[in-house]
Amino acid sequence: MIGGTDVHIVRGEYPVLEGLTLGHEAVGVIHELGTGVTGYQLGQRVLVGAITPCGQCEACLAGDRSQCGGALGGWRLGNTMDGVQAEYALIPHAQANLAAIPDILSDEQVLLLADIASTGFAAAERGKIRLGDTVAIFAQGPIGLCATLGARLMGAAEIIAVDSDPNRLKMAQFFGATTVLLSCGDAVAEIREVTEGRGVDVAIEALGTQETFEKALRALRPGGTLSSVGVYSSHLQISIDAIGAGLGDHTIVTTLCPGGKERMARLMRLVSAQRIDLTPLFTHVFPLEQIERAYKLFASRESGVLKVAIRAS
Amino acid sequence: MIGGTDVHIVRGEYPVLEGLTLGHEAVGVIHELGTGVTGYQLGQRVLVGAITPCGQCEACLAGDRSQCGGALGGWRLGNTMDGVQAEYALIPHAQANLAAIPDILSDEQVLLLADIASTGFAAAERGKIRLGDTVAIFAQGPIGLCATLGARLMGAAEIIAVDSDPNRLKMAQFFGATTVLLSCGDAVAEIREVTEGRGVDVAIEALGTQETFEKALRALRPGGTLSSVGVYSSHLQISIDAIGAGLGDHTIVTTLCPGGKERMARLMRLVSAQRIDLTPLFTHVFPLEQIERAYKLFASRESGVLKVAIRAS
Amino acid sequence: MIGGTDVHIVRGEYPVLEGLTLGHEAVGVIHELGTGVTGYQLGQRVLVGAITPCGQCEACLAGDRSQCGGALGGWRLGNTMDGVQAEYALIPHAQANLAAIPDILSDEQVLLLADIASTGFAAAERGKIRLGDTVAIFAQGPIGLCATLGARLMGAAEIIAVDSDPNRLKMAQFFGATTVLLSCGDAVAEIREVTEGRGVDVAIEALGTQETFEKALRALRPGGTLSSVGVYSSHLQISIDAIGAGLGDHTIVTTLCPGGKERMARLMRLVSAQRIDLTPLFTHVFPLEQIERAYKLFASRESGVLKVAIRAS
Amino acid sequence: MIGGTDVHIVRGEYPVLEGLTLGHEAVGVIHELGTGVTGYQLGQRVLVGAITPCGQCEACLAGDRSQCGGALGGWRLGNTMDGVQAEYALIPHAQANLAAIPDILSDEQVLLLADIASTGFAAAERGKIRLGDTVAIFAQGPIGLCATLGARLMGAAEIIAVDSDPNRLKMAQFFGATTVLLSCGDAVAEIREVTEGRGVDVAIEALGTQETFEKALRALRPGGTLSSVGVYSSHLQISIDAIGAGLGDHTIVTTLCPGGKERMARLMRLVSAQRIDLTPLFTHVFPLEQIERAYKLFASRESGVLKVAIRAS
Repeated sequence: MIGGTDVHIVRGEYPVLEGLTLGHEAVGVIHELGTGVTGYQLGQRVLVGAITPCGQCEACLAGDRSQCGGALGGWRLGNTMDGVQAEYALIPHAQANLAAIPDILSDEQVLLLADIASTGFAAAERGKIRLGDTVAIFAQGPIGLCATLGARLMGAAEIIAVDSDPNRLKMAQFFGATTVLLSCGDAVAEIREVTEGRGVDVAIEALGTQETFEKALRALRPGGTLSSVGVYSSHLQISIDAIGAGLGDHTIVTTLCPGGKERMARLMRLVSAQRIDLTPLFTHVFPLEQIERAYKLFASRESGVLKVAIRAS
Repeated sequence: MIGGTDVHIVRGEYPVLEGLTLGHEAVGVIHELGTGVTGYQLGQRVLVGAITPCGQCEACLAGDRSQCGGALGGWRLGNTMDGVQAEYALIPHAQANLAAIPDILSDEQVLLLADIASTGFAAAERGKIRLGDTVAIFAQGPIGLCATLGARLMGAAEIIAVDSDPNRLKMAQFFGATTVLLSCGDAVAEIREVTEGRGVDVAIEALGTQETFEKALRALRPGGTLSSVGVYSSHLQISIDAIGAGLGDHTIVTTLCPGGKERMARLMRLVSAQRIDLTPLFTHVFPLEQIERAYKLFASRESGVLKVAIRAS
Repeated sequence: MIGGTDVHIVRGEYPVLEGLTLGHEAVGVIHELGTGVTGYQLGQRVLVGAITPCGQCEACLAGDRSQCGGALGGWRLGNTMDGVQAEYALIPHAQANLAAIPDILSDEQVLLLADIASTGFAAAERGKIRLGDTVAIFAQGPIGLCATLGARLMGAAEIIAVDSDPNRLKMAQFFGATTVLLSCGDAVAEIREVTEGRGVDVAIEALGTQETFEKALRALRPGGTLSSVGVYSSHLQISIDAIGAGLGDHTIVTTLCPGGKERMARLMRLVSAQRIDLTPLFTHVFPLEQIERAYKLFASRESGVLKVAIRAS
Repeated sequence: MIGGTDVHIVRGEYPVLEGLTLGHEAVGVIHELGTGVTGYQLGQRVLVGAITPCGQCEACLAGDRSQCGGALGGWRLGNTMDGVQAEYALIPHAQANLAAIPDILSDEQVLLLADIASTGFAAAERGKIRLGDTVAIFAQGPIGLCATLGARLMGAAEIIAVDSDPNRLKMAQFFGATTVLLSCGDAVAEIREVTEGRGVDVAIEALGTQETFEKALRALRPGGTLSSVGVYSSHLQISIDAIGAGLGDHTIVTTLCPGGKERMARLMRLVSAQRIDLTPLFTHVFPLEQIERAYKLFASRESGVLKVAIRAS
């Protein structure tokens, strides 16, 4: 599958080791097992998260698995080693990262759990959404849509989705948004209106720009939480009045996609139990021969294009 | 409305101050406001939780509002002062406990939030259910059904409901259970099977007996949480092997219904946003004149009888 | 007592209602009790926090008591109503805010719990310091010193205090700092060295400037928490490389002093149990007649001046 | 070193695999490294926790490392494989479990972190002690004493230690207890008196008997937490009145010693920073030849005998 990060990498906007194979989201079949990897069979179908922690370093043992071995260290595939857009790929720390896929689930049903769904759900989880909370999600690309779904899964009541693309807002409603707002308007003022002046308990930033970051902050109630999963390409400004000069009891959390087989297994249970269906996010599927066309289409961010999958066979 | 506690009280099984009016769940209209109660109008329709904390004592300020002023002290209505099965009722600490009902919501839509839904949801919340968790709920009376709904609201994947009554199990499926088990069988063994030997992450006890408590404990995975909302009438035994001799990293939490207007308002938002519909729990409604018949029916615990409402006008 | 905020107010830098009496930290004796305030006697000595929440609004009931009734709403004394630098003062929501002072404790022993110690400790608490954590505290004014003490109280191992004043660093050692750094140097590089490259688990900002905020952020390990209690007077910038482009799993929390009598009582127990002694912070005491001199001295921020107390009798 | 568990094992009270070498607490020097273990040198001095999690199974990745691979599975040394009371020992999952010992620390200074201090501190941590809390610890053997120290480290105010041995109570005061109670009296009544009727916020059970478990429960305030680290040899009873019939908002947590090198490193930092000194717990040291005598003395539980160390060279 092609992700936003892959496009960043192709364009040279995110620096990875040169000459690497792209790709960090895959379902595959085990062809060979390294020494000491136990509990698996050759031929077994597995899901591998974008983040492949070792589980054994200090960061992992402290629960910061995405920062395995150092800053952002859990992201290896397609970043510091060859990725998975290939016929065969080597999975690091396989013992901690191969999650067996139940037979009843198809590849398409689970593939998006590797990265964007795990990230989007993490946005909701790190926001510590409580039952009945009001949540606003800024940007409804694939990750924002999964954050919308995550907010719904965690029991939010009012879920306000903001985006500039009416097609994406339609999809947002499908994924659980109760109110949708076109971002060309004054979203913050509209959110204040929808919430009768209260502001939202949790605001999620899922794009990576100053504008959405600031709006998310301003949409919060005093004491609220801004949960950010966007990747930023320039410095951020925190307006002093948006945080009550530092006295507003706000929380800002940033999150890299969580990984590891336990999370993958747990999220797959949501699919098995038919609580989530991510397949509507696949708006386009291409055969491997047409991968260049696929990249171009995905990079275009055209309305109606969400996730583009590559099928190897 | 008549609750299980009212029946306990009528039978003399739970000691309350003698001569009190029964009832601790009500929607009403404000007839008069005490000195210093602000922000409300006469005639305003409000929801009052079963638990009416003062918000100002040490327990409340520490967040233990149901233990307001002392053990179980938050429960006043129908317990230490006259309850609400009356034409007029005095609400203690009104400033902290009157939650305005939005016009779009009917009395029936919100009444159950006062006690059983708040309690059932609290069972799920105190269990700290994570996205994708597997949860078992023992007993599917009104509170157990709300715990089932709460587990679903919090993002559980597999939700296993256990009860002896097939009618209640049908209702459990309606409220989100993915597996239902008749308790006449060996529920623990069946749960082990359903979870492929793992056990559940969270088990909820919603009846108040040694049998269900023990089964809930035995259904847990190592490190799992037993969340209890049952009211017990005899001592409980913890079998040593169910907790690995004390080394199993288990958590047992007991919970009294949470109250206060903030919680009531937040839970009402779940109804406004159409995320929950509790009205199927009202299996019977009686006029005030037939309140004795209503009590008898409810006390019978006949199959098909869940909640019995009394309508004053 | 005079606090930094009072100086901000006198200088017109923080806008409060005009004509108000200053002061938001006081111990006093009850002269009169409002209707409905129970459990107190006239003549009783009480401690009142700087923040006086009502305990009964939605924010308070949600646990956001410093944001009582709206943004920063918990701060009333000397802000939206007359403060306590007076012979008599009216305490709002007295039932929730009068904490009886044990006879064995002197006024001086508890006065600083009303604001700066509660704030400094909250910096440590909101940082969720774990046993053995490494913590850096930027600025060692009265609040920073209390944050240093708070980090020690919560079980931090290495506690690194940063300030430009050698006298304050000496005091920091007295309050528990294990390493002190003059901020004229490259504190971030020195912290990296002290921590053998790891960075700190929690960094506390206790001044309110871009420089200390940024240094605190850069001192963190991936996944670390920046706990801010400074009051800022200009916008803040988050450097993109300090947060791994948004992928570093960082947390930033801002905190207004917590209040309410339960907290005051709990913190007084730390004094009674001789776990803390805040009196070394009182470097100067003036009689009420010399209050102007006292303000001037405090505002000078001269080395050796920490807290200045005013004694009414 | 000899631990209580070793005595249980020698007496046949805790079933381990037959014929195993005893011992699960050791400092040692690396003689050989398994394939793929990186970041260590031969000859390096390391601390190994009693619990040696793999870090890579579902339980470990979910944070339940002591339950690695199944119930109690993290405890391998001296339980399911040969222990460390030997000249050479094989450490399972070495990558996750070898914590380098700083040169400035002696073996004696860190050895107790492997098991009893980590367990005692975990009792305090799992109890979620807040600044200023009141804590009671039942039994002041080595683990209870470490729990007392842990409560102090986490910022408890009043720390009440209960034991039947005046010598141990003396040691408890040394480790931070502010009040000591002989358990022959009515400890619960005395605790109520000391706390002016409030009860304790957190009670720690560190012995493993019905009597101490029940007293701990009865000493709690409504909403309090019982943190248990005792190993029980018979079923436990929860008296219904001790938990308000299930409505007292109590929490009971049981905890097995946490392990892994990150925890060992973090706790060693507490020693390096001179925040803790565990060496007073070593009341007796024996050469390896006298190990039988050492076992007998330790098993005697004589007054004045706390930890008995075996020195190999």
